[in-house]
Amino acid sequence: MPDICLFHMPGACSGVAMIALEEAGLDYEDRVINIFAGEQRSASYLSVNPKGKVPALRFDGCLITEGAGILIFIDEQYPEARLLPSGNAAQKAQYRSDLIWCSNTLHPLARSIMMPDRIAPGAPESARAVAIEQLRDILASSSGRFPEWWNGRDWSITDAYVAWCLGLAVLGGFDLASFPEVQSYLERAGRRESARRARSRERAALADAGIQLPPGFSL
Amino acid sequence: MPDICLFHMPGACSGVAMIALEEAGLDYEDRVINIFAGEQRSASYLSVNPKGKVPALRFDGCLITEGAGILIFIDEQYPEARLLPSGNAAQKAQYRSDLIWCSNTLHPLARSIMMPDRIAPGAPESARAVAIEQLRDILASSSGRFPEWWNGRDWSITDAYVAWCLGLAVLGGFDLASFPEVQSYLERAGRRESARRARSRERAALADAGIQLPPGFSL
Repeated sequence: MPDICLFHMPGACSGVAMIALEEAGLDYEDRVINIFAGEQRSASYLSVNPKGKVPALRFDGCLITEGAGILIFIDEQYPEARLLPSGNAAQKAQYRSDLIWCSNTLHPLARSIMMPDRIAPGAPESARAVAIEQLRDILASSSGRFPEWWNGRDWSITDAYVAWCLGLAVLGGFDLASFPEVQSYLERAGRRESARRARSRERAALADAGIQLPPGFSL
Repeated sequence: MPDICLFHMPGACSGVAMIALEEAGLDYEDRVINIFAGEQRSASYLSVNPKGKVPALRFDGCLITEGAGILIFIDEQYPEARLLPSGNAAQKAQYRSDLIWCSNTLHPLARSIMMPDRIAPGAPESARAVAIEQLRDILASSSGRFPEWWNGRDWSITDAYVAWCLGLAVLGGFDLASFPEVQSYLERAGRRESARRARSRERAALADAGIQLPPGFSL
């Protein structure tokens, strides 16, 4: 078994990497980096990940950063876990690209909805309104993705990432009333066994570290 | 030879995908999608890339979206082009993750500096100031990357992506006066043969399409 450690923050997008590790049935250590207390900028964590972000994965002494990058790596190392559908090289590339899109489009929009003051402290509501409109457009144009799973009949890790992003937007007040299929998709995604296990491990990690999430955040 | 078509906009981050195609010595068609005229949201382009973004790559009939995803795919298909350094699986994963980081961190910051009104129309200067501060922090903490190339002694496609992002920030008024090594890095990156060829092809494509870039943008 490889020596694996996930640096994470319960509630953050690192939960998606944890779901991937659970899906692959791996043994791993986890270490909480309290980003609400700025611990990601501590000297000790910057010596692990100089970019000062979570998640980061230490895998047999090598460090891998970026949520999407970690998911792609676990899929590549453990193809039997079927984190992404099989396909030819170009199809696999496009499955990966959807994870990258989660990280560069969906996640930033959700963050702008939940924490607009971090984007535009002078006018958070303006930044929030722009992000809400863009996310509504995305949900409308992706409507074919939600009745089953993002990549078709079978769940994939993309669903965990999409669901995490949309869950953050909902915590930020994004209204799903006109997207009932998305609401039901989020519920299905949350019921998956690996998602339950990761959530329960995140809760235990919070309790062990004696950390309370700030108001408005939940697991 | 595969049948390759790059959907791109001269001046946009699609130029990085073009540099990758040039490095790999591939024959490819290119089609301009005028994002300044909203062509990425036209029905005909949405039928190519439903996400309405450039670049997109059609490779033997398969579509691959997301700049970082396209770079990773070309590296994987044409390892002899050495777009990314060689290494074990975890090291390769981390090289890929730096491309993903360009797409989810560096590029959005540069866009916020160049086009802050798209992020926070109510207070663009507030969004711009936040992005400038974050980019300055990143350049300071990445200072070891610029004397040679991002990944060490040899150029990699990461340099083309980093340089494109920083070039956009500079167009947006980001001041490199206190980062002379970054200035010199950008000049070196721009002089690489593949970068010159891509720039010249982008200029020709603009002229063929009869498009003028908006004020403030340049190639």
